[in-house]
Amino acid sequence: MEIFAERTQLALDLVGVFFFAVTGALLAARKGFDVVASALLAGMTGLGGGVVRDVIIGVRPAALEHPVYLAPVLLAVGVVYLYYPHVSRFRRTLLLFDAAGLGLFCVTGTAKALAADVPAVSAALLGVTTAVGGGLLRDVVAREVPSLFRYDDIYALPAMVGAAATAVLWRLDALSVWTGVAASVVTFTLRALALRYSWRAPLAYRRQAPDG
Amino acid sequence: MEIFAERTQLALDLVGVFFFAVTGALLAARKGFDVVASALLAGMTGLGGGVVRDVIIGVRPAALEHPVYLAPVLLAVGVVYLYYPHVSRFRRTLLLFDAAGLGLFCVTGTAKALAADVPAVSAALLGVTTAVGGGLLRDVVAREVPSLFRYDDIYALPAMVGAAATAVLWRLDALSVWTGVAASVVTFTLRALALRYSWRAPLAYRRQAPDG
Amino acid sequence: MEIFAERTQLALDLVGVFFFAVTGALLAARKGFDVVASALLAGMTGLGGGVVRDVIIGVRPAALEHPVYLAPVLLAVGVVYLYYPHVSRFRRTLLLFDAAGLGLFCVTGTAKALAADVPAVSAALLGVTTAVGGGLLRDVVAREVPSLFRYDDIYALPAMVGAAATAVLWRLDALSVWTGVAASVVTFTLRALALRYSWRAPLAYRRQAPDG
Repeated sequence: MEIFAERTQLALDLVGVFFFAVTGALLAARKGFDVVASALLAGMTGLGGGVVRDVIIGVRPAALEHPVYLAPVLLAVGVVYLYYPHVSRFRRTLLLFDAAGLGLFCVTGTAKALAADVPAVSAALLGVTTAVGGGLLRDVVAREVPSLFRYDDIYALPAMVGAAATAVLWRLDALSVWTGVAASVVTFTLRALALRYSWRAPLAYRRQAPDG
Repeated sequence: MEIFAERTQLALDLVGVFFFAVTGALLAARKGFDVVASALLAGMTGLGGGVVRDVIIGVRPAALEHPVYLAPVLLAVGVVYLYYPHVSRFRRTLLLFDAAGLGLFCVTGTAKALAADVPAVSAALLGVTTAVGGGLLRDVVAREVPSLFRYDDIYALPAMVGAAATAVLWRLDALSVWTGVAASVVTFTLRALALRYSWRAPLAYRRQAPDG
Repeated sequence: MEIFAERTQLALDLVGVFFFAVTGALLAARKGFDVVASALLAGMTGLGGGVVRDVIIGVRPAALEHPVYLAPVLLAVGVVYLYYPHVSRFRRTLLLFDAAGLGLFCVTGTAKALAADVPAVSAALLGVTTAVGGGLLRDVVAREVPSLFRYDDIYALPAMVGAAATAVLWRLDALSVWTGVAASVVTFTLRALALRYSWRAPLAYRRQAPDG
């Protein structure tokens, strides 16, 4: 079963890989890694989420079959090598590219899981996995506090919205390139607004009154 | 080949997922994560070990096929949200739930691997992987020292006993729900006693005399 | 399609597992883990890279089918238990065993991926994954800075050379046990020289002049 045409899926994927790979290369530069480590971290960040999704679904990862997936990784490493931003803009640059990757991958990840006949709820969760997996891998291997768990601003929630929207659109037979890209843009916008206005979700436990 | 009837495997699995998910949600609360991060950490802890096992065996993860696996995760997040224990009892609560999950998963994990025609020794190791995998993932992504490696008390050894017992029972054609649950209870009890009495295994190297 | 004869692949694999398992057991001893944790860390280090490669390719991991893969892990744990080196020699011992594992696994990993009909470029990358995966897993779960990312000396680059050489030899129909072992030795030598002379790759970004 096909959700997006193969070339569309590939094109959206490559753009998403590029966005995430930039965040990996930026972090590598920030941490003083060399250019080879930068390529490895960029590759893990850009391809990690999709590989984990494909391995869980049980299909051979697209990045393995099509070595063209390495192109956006190398491009990202080169761009960061040449234009590593001034430290004061580093964090915002990384977070915006991360948000762009999040927006694309929650939609394409859900679509790919639906195409593999996974139940819609699980497909949406695999979309979230695709979207947050690469960044989590990046932060864990580079020994950073995962963005996923920082309390400053919501991170996974926008991806959940985008993935759920994709699954619902598909159920309504209304998932196309245009509605998919719209879901991506909504996700990106929600995440960017969360960053700008420090939107937060409730804590993991009910705060108790000082006397309670 | 079937080891436990499908409904039995599912029921035992869901209880184990709940136990581990509680430990993930507890740690999320302790670290000041929000409720979404709590759900993600609880999900990784509860489902991670089983997903890794299924991916290694080469079957599609049960949690993917049956979205009901999400129910114990959400239940755990809700319970912790409402009843997050006082700090002084936090560590013991987490460790006891962890021990309960360990007991169940080393048995069900081994059984599921045996059902997939894996050699008995490897099946027992996959049972241990199921039992310790979710907790290891929890500790690594939340940047804690993995329980698995703390020297205070044995952790993997009880799971190895339970997994080996399951494989032996199966060889003797004596593995049933009752003997399986008995192996789980033995594992839980060993781990709880290890916690209570600080049972330790020998260090990884022979201590040398000060003059040696 | 067969690259190396089955027994050759197995023999080379077991030696590589032993080298990496020694590094896991050494690190466990250094960190004060117990002997069970040492076995688990040695197992993850020795078998982790190969299991990840096989899971990505979509074949059942060799270590699962052949429990003999546990033998070099247990041997490594025993050797380290008896002969844990004096602290002053600890780091060098670990790095040399790591380099030996790196040399073997980049070649056998690439060969195994080629045998599974993966495109040559992807096969070489899977060879690198096999070579660096176990050590990365070791460092991440034991909370060390991954060797992979340390800037002191090149680490992944020798593995990339060995993996690429293997893929090229295969294309030229010249991959045999002897040329494969030669590629391993070259990789090991490059890594050992990099350690000795602190060979470095360029940083991940172009250094800017103080006034720039």
